[in-house]
Amino acid sequence: MADVATKERRILVAVDEGEESAHALSWCIKNVIMQNSKDTLFLLYAKPPRAVYTALDGTGEREDPSGYLFSSDITAAMESYTNDVADCVIEKAKRMCKDLHDVKVETRVENGDPRDVICQMVEKLGADVLVMGSHGYGLIKRAFLGSVSNHCAQTVKCPVLIVKKPKTNAENK
Amino acid sequence: MADVATKERRILVAVDEGEESAHALSWCIKNVIMQNSKDTLFLLYAKPPRAVYTALDGTGEREDPSGYLFSSDITAAMESYTNDVADCVIEKAKRMCKDLHDVKVETRVENGDPRDVICQMVEKLGADVLVMGSHGYGLIKRAFLGSVSNHCAQTVKCPVLIVKKPKTNAENK
Repeated sequence: MADVATKERRILVAVDEGEESAHALSWCIKNVIMQNSKDTLFLLYAKPPRAVYTALDGTGEREDPSGYLFSSDITAAMESYTNDVADCVIEKAKRMCKDLHDVKVETRVENGDPRDVICQMVEKLGADVLVMGSHGYGLIKRAFLGSVSNHCAQTVKCPVLIVKKPKTNAENK
Repeated sequence: MADVATKERRILVAVDEGEESAHALSWCIKNVIMQNSKDTLFLLYAKPPRAVYTALDGTGEREDPSGYLFSSDITAAMESYTNDVADCVIEKAKRMCKDLHDVKVETRVENGDPRDVICQMVEKLGADVLVMGSHGYGLIKRAFLGSVSNHCAQTVKCPVLIVKKPKTNAENK
């Protein structure tokens, strides 16, 4: 264990607007990050790509070109909303890390399907471990098929730590 | 992080005869187990149930009762072999933990499908985290459908750390 304190580890935590990812980060801070280490903690939020909420707003531009004119307003509102969510998620995650004086904390916000974003960023940042919740990844999770954590665990090369929300929460499955 | 040193964590590592599980244990020792902690490390090996290698020996007792008389010999030999493998796996895992002076190391060998054994033991031992490789779990992995780690990640309530074999090994996928 002696070499750990002097080794810089790059720990990537995928955060979202859900309680589960906050719990995953909290668990990581308490159980993975070492005191007096040279760890770098990356907080990553995957912002939904525009295509997803354009498809979800239901105005169907392609099939009904004469239809609802506020489609672009909705898109703009959603863009603004997702930016606010991203800021909020990242700020909350940073606050949770405020007592990590020895550990470098960096944040990343990337557009795209969380599955792709997370796997790409693990590679790009050279992460030594990926930490994430087990849920379908937040607000728009139903827009994506399958479990994000499952996909990432199968895809990335580094160790993956999947942290579930504690039982006390009714939403936990 | 201060409370970690005084908190007893129960860390369950599923070991098998493969290199990947040895790597998972090694990663866990270096990255999860804390110095001067009150952690307890459980090394768990799931021994294949007799039914599996009886079915695999191909003598088909049910369909060919007059057939090969050495079926029971094969079963006995396999039983002895799996016991030897279990001893060997557990001894190797214990050797890897020999420098963990502060940490209590306990071993468990249980009969059964690794998926069931691991999930049951997480529950029974009240594990705070499950650590395992990502492969199909060793020698008889092809007898089981699907990935053991995937099943366990979906089933157990505690955090699951899935550690893959490093890239340098040709077998890595």
